[in-house]
Amino acid sequence: METLSTVRAHGGTQGVYKHASAATGTDMTFSVFVPDHAPGAKLPVVWYLSGLTCTHANVTEKGEYRAACARHGLIFVAPDTSPRGEGVPDDPAYDFGQGAGFYVDATEAPYADHFNMWSYVTDELPALVREVFPVDPSRQSIMGHSMGGHGALTIGLTFPDRYKAVSAFSPIVAPSQVPWGGKALVGYLGEDRTAWRKHDAVALIEDGARVPALLVDQGEADNFLAEQLRPDLLASACETAKVDLTLRIHPGYDHSYYFISTFMADQLDWHADRLGA
Amino acid sequence: METLSTVRAHGGTQGVYKHASAATGTDMTFSVFVPDHAPGAKLPVVWYLSGLTCTHANVTEKGEYRAACARHGLIFVAPDTSPRGEGVPDDPAYDFGQGAGFYVDATEAPYADHFNMWSYVTDELPALVREVFPVDPSRQSIMGHSMGGHGALTIGLTFPDRYKAVSAFSPIVAPSQVPWGGKALVGYLGEDRTAWRKHDAVALIEDGARVPALLVDQGEADNFLAEQLRPDLLASACETAKVDLTLRIHPGYDHSYYFISTFMADQLDWHADRLGA
Repeated sequence: METLSTVRAHGGTQGVYKHASAATGTDMTFSVFVPDHAPGAKLPVVWYLSGLTCTHANVTEKGEYRAACARHGLIFVAPDTSPRGEGVPDDPAYDFGQGAGFYVDATEAPYADHFNMWSYVTDELPALVREVFPVDPSRQSIMGHSMGGHGALTIGLTFPDRYKAVSAFSPIVAPSQVPWGGKALVGYLGEDRTAWRKHDAVALIEDGARVPALLVDQGEADNFLAEQLRPDLLASACETAKVDLTLRIHPGYDHSYYFISTFMADQLDWHADRLGA
Repeated sequence: METLSTVRAHGGTQGVYKHASAATGTDMTFSVFVPDHAPGAKLPVVWYLSGLTCTHANVTEKGEYRAACARHGLIFVAPDTSPRGEGVPDDPAYDFGQGAGFYVDATEAPYADHFNMWSYVTDELPALVREVFPVDPSRQSIMGHSMGGHGALTIGLTFPDRYKAVSAFSPIVAPSQVPWGGKALVGYLGEDRTAWRKHDAVALIEDGARVPALLVDQGEADNFLAEQLRPDLLASACETAKVDLTLRIHPGYDHSYYFISTFMADQLDWHADRLGA
């Protein structure tokens, strides 16, 4: 692992790191914020998965998470959203290929060799982070935005014992049923829709996946709300399955980091409660 | 005035606006955050002046000021740092010309026609902001970063009745005595150093300018500390003049928005106290 930068911020260290990933076959860049802590102490960790087109940098610069993480003693990790670079297949559109890994392990050519973001964020990167940073692996949680909200929900529902809190900002809750998700799932996983169900939060809940609680913040003025995000589908699935969903619709707020940063501290407070932080 | 964008954030409206400036002879872009407020209410306003190379966008995206402004009911205005565009003289270096107006009215060719940032931020833009936004002109304060800290200090010292609080992050306190300032002042104001003194905070204090209190935050790991910023010169001038300076040196912090965002809420609390907000 190579340290690209470290800077002091909000009583902790904000770093950016690069490593050669076996899962993606590329170099991958990610950021980690570590609050000051007692020597030898192990801290809970919040995983943040970003949305379409983003790298680690968007939330690192605009997410306004550091003050709350420092207050609660939370490590905050922000991976990239896909493999990148020469030799990595791409698509001319912003919603597929580089910057749009959708947190799946691709099975379809030409994406299968590199687009393994499920393994990357659930297995390879956690192992690296645990090795290098003072993380308590028994206290992890996960959140994300838009495509990353999809990732946080599907990963949280798949590993309910590992992630003590699961939340999202404006998530894609049912990719099988919306244009962004349909394009990505057919492109990465193929035409067989049964393979899609473990990468669709609503389908996972329908198929029996459970978590103690979910928190979702959604802007009501979000351009993508009606066609791509469909929080109503999550609300309906959670009601049927008796999953404790807190869905907060915020009038006037859009899909941007101005929205995310507004409710970030609030979501982190909720995570901290569940992480015993 | 043209509205370029407005977005809901932290219980208020973050806008970006453009207008044709008479002071600079160019279009100028600036941002304004207005917290929610009672109809007809007039709010105190904090002016934020940015540093070399910045536009309004840097602090707007990375400054983390909105939560504190919403909490205190403060309007926050961020102007650009210079005129820009075709026909505006420039310099190949980052520290002079476009992006480096130094908050003076230039008298030297070819800069005098456009580089009138003193008039712009003390006169023209305040009049526009007062006309369009719900500002209480009897409750204004000013802060800034680096070159913008220089601007905040010199403007605050020049108009002590207008600005109820004056603070800075890593300011250039004595431009006449450091390379950045020397280059800018000779380029904009000419060789006669007597003209420089009203654009040099330390010289202004030596010449009798007074404010009730100054607050300065400075990172100890700032690369520009020893050569360009020299807070020791401000401390010495304030001690001699009995100006109440609070100078906080923060070990490990650099010159970036990671530093500014860490102490932004704290400076805004200090402003709010002095603005009766």
